[in-house]
Amino acid sequence: MTENPNTDDPVVPLDEEQCWELLRTGKLGRLVTVVEGRPEIYPVNYVTDEHRVYFRSGAGSKLSELVVHATVAFEVDEIHEDSAWSVVVHGRARLIRSFGDEARIDALGLMPWVPTAKYDYVELTATEITGMRLVLVKH
Amino acid sequence: MTENPNTDDPVVPLDEEQCWELLRTGKLGRLVTVVEGRPEIYPVNYVTDEHRVYFRSGAGSKLSELVVHATVAFEVDEIHEDSAWSVVVHGRARLIRSFGDEARIDALGLMPWVPTAKYDYVELTATEITGMRLVLVKH
Repeated sequence: MTENPNTDDPVVPLDEEQCWELLRTGKLGRLVTVVEGRPEIYPVNYVTDEHRVYFRSGAGSKLSELVVHATVAFEVDEIHEDSAWSVVVHGRARLIRSFGDEARIDALGLMPWVPTAKYDYVELTATEITGMRLVLVKH
Repeated sequence: MTENPNTDDPVVPLDEEQCWELLRTGKLGRLVTVVEGRPEIYPVNYVTDEHRVYFRSGAGSKLSELVVHATVAFEVDEIHEDSAWSVVVHGRARLIRSFGDEARIDALGLMPWVPTAKYDYVELTATEITGMRLVLVKH
């Protein structure tokens, strides 16, 4: 992790590998889709594997949106006493249709958030990943 | 808070007052803007007051986007051992230009996240607020 020696600039940009490294430590992210100019945002449990993000989704509007509007954003952040970070992935989402792929994602440790009966699996391939680390004001 | 007696349906929709009540307990949210169909998402510290959301923002792309594309979404979530909630506000953002309004928002306890020198104040007026409470799977 890059340290920030300059307290005049508390926002430290992260490089791509640092972003993926932080994504691997998280569990809960937020998926953003855009439908006719209106943003929708959903919390999702996720896992990463080889620079891809995977999550499960119950049947419903989120998936319909993904299929039609496959360009999405995905954000994960974490806040500590004196620092915080945020990573944003832009990319394309696709439904996973293969049982083999589903089993592989299960094996990565992707947990459902709620015990809904039916899940679909979604794979997000990053076209861009950006992040920053913040040195927080002490109150 | 609505309890959920039906374990077959772990997703409990929240009414508007429950959503505002939960928003009042949080500090960190995520602001979503859309620029030419591409969603952007930023973590922000926030406060609420009388069904409005306030946050500060350093000068930069976020504010430029808000001025041009004032329709935004804003999300706050919290996850516990066996439950979670998420609230999403859709609404319009505007820059606050009055020192009096800025002082009023400071008095609400809005803390800057990082010690950047210059802040602008943004007010988000909700056109819609939705939320859900989730009963989580125990692992």
